[in-house]
Amino acid sequence: MAKSMPVSPLAPAAFPDLPLVKGVRFATAAAGVKYKDRTDVMLAVLDPGAAVAGVFTRSKTRSAPVRDCQAKLGGDTAGAAAILVNSGNSNAFTGHYGQTSVAEIVASVSKITGAPQSRVFTASTGVIGEPLPHERIVAKIAELNDGLDENAVERAAAAIMTTDTFAKGAGATVTINGKTVNIAGIAKGSGMIAPDMATMLVYIFTDAQVEQAALQAQLAEICNSSFNCITVDSDTSTSDSLMLCATGASGVDATGNAEFAQALEAVMMDLAHQVVRDGEGATKFVEIQITGAVSDAEAKVHGMAIANSPLVKTAIAGEDPNWGRVVMAIGKSGAEADRDRLSISFGDVLVAEKGWVASSYKEEDGAAQMKQDEITIKVDLGLGDGSATVWTCDLTHQYITINADYRS
Amino acid sequence: MAKSMPVSPLAPAAFPDLPLVKGVRFATAAAGVKYKDRTDVMLAVLDPGAAVAGVFTRSKTRSAPVRDCQAKLGGDTAGAAAILVNSGNSNAFTGHYGQTSVAEIVASVSKITGAPQSRVFTASTGVIGEPLPHERIVAKIAELNDGLDENAVERAAAAIMTTDTFAKGAGATVTINGKTVNIAGIAKGSGMIAPDMATMLVYIFTDAQVEQAALQAQLAEICNSSFNCITVDSDTSTSDSLMLCATGASGVDATGNAEFAQALEAVMMDLAHQVVRDGEGATKFVEIQITGAVSDAEAKVHGMAIANSPLVKTAIAGEDPNWGRVVMAIGKSGAEADRDRLSISFGDVLVAEKGWVASSYKEEDGAAQMKQDEITIKVDLGLGDGSATVWTCDLTHQYITINADYRS
Repeated sequence: MAKSMPVSPLAPAAFPDLPLVKGVRFATAAAGVKYKDRTDVMLAVLDPGAAVAGVFTRSKTRSAPVRDCQAKLGGDTAGAAAILVNSGNSNAFTGHYGQTSVAEIVASVSKITGAPQSRVFTASTGVIGEPLPHERIVAKIAELNDGLDENAVERAAAAIMTTDTFAKGAGATVTINGKTVNIAGIAKGSGMIAPDMATMLVYIFTDAQVEQAALQAQLAEICNSSFNCITVDSDTSTSDSLMLCATGASGVDATGNAEFAQALEAVMMDLAHQVVRDGEGATKFVEIQITGAVSDAEAKVHGMAIANSPLVKTAIAGEDPNWGRVVMAIGKSGAEADRDRLSISFGDVLVAEKGWVASSYKEEDGAAQMKQDEITIKVDLGLGDGSATVWTCDLTHQYITINADYRS
Repeated sequence: MAKSMPVSPLAPAAFPDLPLVKGVRFATAAAGVKYKDRTDVMLAVLDPGAAVAGVFTRSKTRSAPVRDCQAKLGGDTAGAAAILVNSGNSNAFTGHYGQTSVAEIVASVSKITGAPQSRVFTASTGVIGEPLPHERIVAKIAELNDGLDENAVERAAAAIMTTDTFAKGAGATVTINGKTVNIAGIAKGSGMIAPDMATMLVYIFTDAQVEQAALQAQLAEICNSSFNCITVDSDTSTSDSLMLCATGASGVDATGNAEFAQALEAVMMDLAHQVVRDGEGATKFVEIQITGAVSDAEAKVHGMAIANSPLVKTAIAGEDPNWGRVVMAIGKSGAEADRDRLSISFGDVLVAEKGWVASSYKEEDGAAQMKQDEITIKVDLGLGDGSATVWTCDLTHQYITINADYRS
């Protein structure tokens, strides 16, 4: 269970100092949805006028809250907005009862916070297929509303955790036309991670002013090279949700601003990597760089084939520089490859080239690379200009222990 | 390592009594390719005139022996034929040296057995990327030829094992026009199993007489519903080879014979299932039956998504009737699904229907199903007539132990 799990060895030393984003306040409560003695509900309330963008799982069995959020995106930004998230129960595959749960929560949040129902977004994460005891959440909304605090983002990150072993946050500050714009984001996720659109639950807030359609396009684009490029176990959640809210409180219009885009990308990449660092059972953080593929799309296919291969992941867990399994994964991926043009490096150590082990390769050099906590695998296909980078972790006994026991 | 591994709890009680197939003889030897104190080379020699069909991995990094076999298929059947297999080294990703190894072995087998080089097929299975010490194999070929024996098929099955914990064989006898036709097959494989054309190494022999092109077509067709429907870990070998040899010694022409086809399918299915039963670390044999999909191809996509999901496989290892993870796998598969038309059963226990847990479902009934060694998961999509059945095993601590230590 989440609470007794030791913190991932790949966790950052501490939750980061996030910049304050004006225009959004947070509160958390312990509703007892499933967990005891911990917070499990998070409410964020945005001042009127905030632009809200979202990217959600493509799963065909996605949850009731995800379907509700998708229907609400792109609407009028006039009123306040609210996001309510619970952990412990995903409200996925709960039939029409699931929609009722969402409706009850949305109605209550709207009534108490004053945000119109069309601007109340919810998310649920945890076990699939059990009815959400929404009355326990509804009972806490007045308390949450009374406790809203612009400085409570770290507590918000903690309340949305399930098998996560640490709370995940990332922030950035940009100066645009001499004025400061802040970005702060939180994420949860460590298993069922192979996002097809976004990962698990991620909420990012900025006081920049960005036109809503532009915000949505920007979010989707950066998502493709960040959250959509990580995998823990090749399994895609029914609840994946990524939301980006621009309050405009800084008074700075950041629509189309390159520095803002860069800062946002850095925050999203940081959060995506933290999800991998908290991969269930992870002891190694692995970056896989693919170059020389016939296209970027084919490069990503190769990268994901390596990142999702149980044999590559167990070799990494065993600190075995088993580049033969990397060759195997490239071969099975379905994307173009030519054995004799392929080269493979572990970190800066060239391992294989021209269809065989490199003449300069020494097993002890490869082994030394594998002993590190952070490992880079570089593959050049030698075919074209396509490239992609993906991130994953190793596959260990702890993953089995967590998932043979924990019902998620 | 292979030798110290306990035998799979899913293994058959004993190697089966295979029918004698006239026209083919076997021999084994201990060449010390990698393993010590066990046989690691198998030679099968077919009398002149045998038809030989083969199906091989589609991996783009497939091994030198696979490429050599593919080039030789479909040739003249006049002379004798030979198959030489070694375990311990796959001769894959060994550059031009790998081709030299194949050429040396083929030349020696041809010279000593009298089979033309165009009828000498080889296979290698084991570690990827290390040079094959082919001279150790060549040194044993005269001894192998002297020891050829039509009754040595069980020893042949043992010599080709790597991480396998038991030797795999299956046989059948059919009566056609009052005459007896025999089929005997052997297989190896337990990890890196998600065949895209065939699994690991499989050799099937029959004394039926079948025209070579027909034999090839029949093999490819049955392969699609047997070996191509199993997965242990979603990883596809660089060495997958399936060969079917018809010696014709029975004097019975079985070309196009339905009973022969049925018997051959039974043998292939049996061998495919034995590979799953010896899946690395397996404690459960799982059959996944998909019906009601929009097409057979989409049914297989759903089946494989469930069979390859680490979260489904660890739930099965933990005997947890976690049908939510089955829902998740269906949702991510990419094939058509409608949450509200879907139904899921474990064995005869209806678990979920109409977008939610079935009203009749009791957790203890699901749990009782999961305690069995053999588990059936049935999914009806409620969309069309497409169906498929696939087979897999659970994902256990033992899989991690085997693959974090064993270099394959």
